[in-house]
Amino acid sequence: MAIKNAFYAQSGGVTAVINATACGLIETARANADRIGKVYAGHNGIIGALREELIDTSLESDATISALKHTPGGAFGSCRYKLKNMTENKREYERLIEVFQAHDIGYFFYNGGGDSQDTAYKVSQLSEKMGYPITCIGVPKTVDNDLPFTDNCPGFGSVAKYVAVSIREAGLDIASMCASSTKVFVLEVMGRHAGWIAAAGGLAAEQEGQPPHVIIFPEIHFDRTRFLKKVDESVKKYGFCCIVASEGAQYEDGRFLADAGTTDVFGHTQLGGVAPMLANMIKEALGYKYHWATSDYLQRSARHVASATDVDHAYAVGKSAVEFALAGKNAVMPIIVRNPGETYSWSIGEAPLSQVANQEKKMPIHYISDDGFGITDECREYLMPLTLGENYPPYKNGLPDYVQLQNQMVAKKLDTDFEL
Amino acid sequence: MAIKNAFYAQSGGVTAVINATACGLIETARANADRIGKVYAGHNGIIGALREELIDTSLESDATISALKHTPGGAFGSCRYKLKNMTENKREYERLIEVFQAHDIGYFFYNGGGDSQDTAYKVSQLSEKMGYPITCIGVPKTVDNDLPFTDNCPGFGSVAKYVAVSIREAGLDIASMCASSTKVFVLEVMGRHAGWIAAAGGLAAEQEGQPPHVIIFPEIHFDRTRFLKKVDESVKKYGFCCIVASEGAQYEDGRFLADAGTTDVFGHTQLGGVAPMLANMIKEALGYKYHWATSDYLQRSARHVASATDVDHAYAVGKSAVEFALAGKNAVMPIIVRNPGETYSWSIGEAPLSQVANQEKKMPIHYISDDGFGITDECREYLMPLTLGENYPPYKNGLPDYVQLQNQMVAKKLDTDFEL
Repeated sequence: MAIKNAFYAQSGGVTAVINATACGLIETARANADRIGKVYAGHNGIIGALREELIDTSLESDATISALKHTPGGAFGSCRYKLKNMTENKREYERLIEVFQAHDIGYFFYNGGGDSQDTAYKVSQLSEKMGYPITCIGVPKTVDNDLPFTDNCPGFGSVAKYVAVSIREAGLDIASMCASSTKVFVLEVMGRHAGWIAAAGGLAAEQEGQPPHVIIFPEIHFDRTRFLKKVDESVKKYGFCCIVASEGAQYEDGRFLADAGTTDVFGHTQLGGVAPMLANMIKEALGYKYHWATSDYLQRSARHVASATDVDHAYAVGKSAVEFALAGKNAVMPIIVRNPGETYSWSIGEAPLSQVANQEKKMPIHYISDDGFGITDECREYLMPLTLGENYPPYKNGLPDYVQLQNQMVAKKLDTDFEL
Repeated sequence: MAIKNAFYAQSGGVTAVINATACGLIETARANADRIGKVYAGHNGIIGALREELIDTSLESDATISALKHTPGGAFGSCRYKLKNMTENKREYERLIEVFQAHDIGYFFYNGGGDSQDTAYKVSQLSEKMGYPITCIGVPKTVDNDLPFTDNCPGFGSVAKYVAVSIREAGLDIASMCASSTKVFVLEVMGRHAGWIAAAGGLAAEQEGQPPHVIIFPEIHFDRTRFLKKVDESVKKYGFCCIVASEGAQYEDGRFLADAGTTDVFGHTQLGGVAPMLANMIKEALGYKYHWATSDYLQRSARHVASATDVDHAYAVGKSAVEFALAGKNAVMPIIVRNPGETYSWSIGEAPLSQVANQEKKMPIHYISDDGFGITDECREYLMPLTLGENYPPYKNGLPDYVQLQNQMVAKKLDTDFEL
């Protein structure tokens, strides 16, 4: 049987380690060149497949591909493009088949979060529904850590480390200044519905009184009175108060604290501005001088302080995706499985895409402390290993030496364009 | 002659490396134990001297003092307390003398920025004006890089590295997403009047088209039309636009773009909110989807990615402060002197406090590109060496292992309190 080429696309928000997944995938494909052909990456994600804009990764040197392991962002570009279902929009699937056929593509690797796994699942059904032979493997990625089945999601461990490191460092700063100056610091972190990232900030509080003193979770209805009381107690007891606040913080009626009013293409409300809002609330009610920070994309692109464990996970799911495909699996996603035992160790398992798609893994409520403002020991035990180890990129002229790919596209074979 | 003890205080905003200065100072004092006594650190800065709250650093182990080198924040606490001049407020100086006398203090080391060097200068005049023998050495520190005479200020090189690393990483993220999503990213950085920190962001743009594409300096009158035109050009040419904006960005009439309306105790306007303001301006005028981040204290406490050169500078000025004092100098400040030559090297020089106090070193206008939105090669040559080298802290449980001092205070000898 002729060797088939592979299509790989990055999807949704990129992370500090999604390129490590691409590295694992491409290197493993290269190591099995007798069984799998070229890896074509979608230029800007699956849009690249629809537009027949396929990046020929075989033109990149081994050294360049290896350097992807330490480079953040999405090397091939990404998009948030959700394929509608086959009955609604058959032409998208017909186009994909057309493009795949023209370029002898028999493998589809789709690297993204929940919404993306839905797309991956739909593509995996092309074989059955439209008679096109395609092996489809979803590859997990998301800073939100909300994909089901997998112990954790590549991209999350590094954000967790970034947030905990940041609040620890800012905390030491405020602790120095609070006697006569700034007493309150608010760090806003990502997390639309799940408080995983906010919870990770709690890792920095290893001893009582260490920052953060207050965590605002999307899962806990925001109560202004209780919040201000907690902040005031912290300032009175420790001299200052450091707060990690999720962008998804909500009132009891479901309104986001800082609804900017705009939406992204998946229909999710674009959030922002919780930190200044909480800081002002504190100033007006309690009079304390404050500072606040919003890390935004810094937290998900911070490869300079990525978690080595996260990098390893990310690489492994890319590698396993190819191995699964070569083993004849279809419509599955490699997952991280936490092995039993005191010291953290892990292995790769699998989950069926039919069950993964469009499910959000909620943070267990027992990971949040009774008063709703902190994390429990169980949460700490879960989170801490994901942040273990440092995997520093190489530096040049004082800055991380990140790789730039040629991203040369393969010649088009079709004579029609596709309007999205 | 009896050995005199030393008083050391940290002043103003703390940095990622001010404790490295404390380390250099204390270690050098310990290495000269036959000539200089105990180092008493002011609890929360000079307020500690006035309140007779003196931390006995001799009770800390050598290992703990050594660990200060990799710990951010101010280990002894800091404050912004400007002594009034002697004619206005003699009682403060009388109190200082009283405290110094009671604890056999003959050396005064004051570690801070411009406003602090003014205080250091006033204290240095105690000998002459009030007949108290004190050797006073100002020790430079500021993220704003605006102390005169010294090539650069300890604390700045690490912020420079942090900002350049951050905009590089965020830039790679936006570059991945811009085809169908976020096209504009604004990173707000510190810098009330001098654009040094904003300029440092420019280091990340090593090749044409690399982020940042636009830098907003306080030195350049903000022109909305020219700004929007520059942003639009960048998006059209490169697909996206990354902006580094100084918190001190000003209109031609001197109004700050994001005047929060509050002031700090030195009378400086407390700023904040330039990033969302600029982002919204772009959205309304050009329609581009944006994200923004405000690093705030994260940028000055980021010891996890400190510049090794900055750490070395910081340690050296602490060491030299003691050496100056032991050499019989008074009313001086050790400075960093850039040696001539292609490869960066430096040595320690000195500057008289009488000339240092209350002078802000402006960024040379020829460091800003002709169009006012970038840095020149000359600026790059100046800045880049300050960010060279990495000096990672040790990690434990996934987080930097920062040291906590006992900070035990020496028994009071005076029976009067002092009201500030």
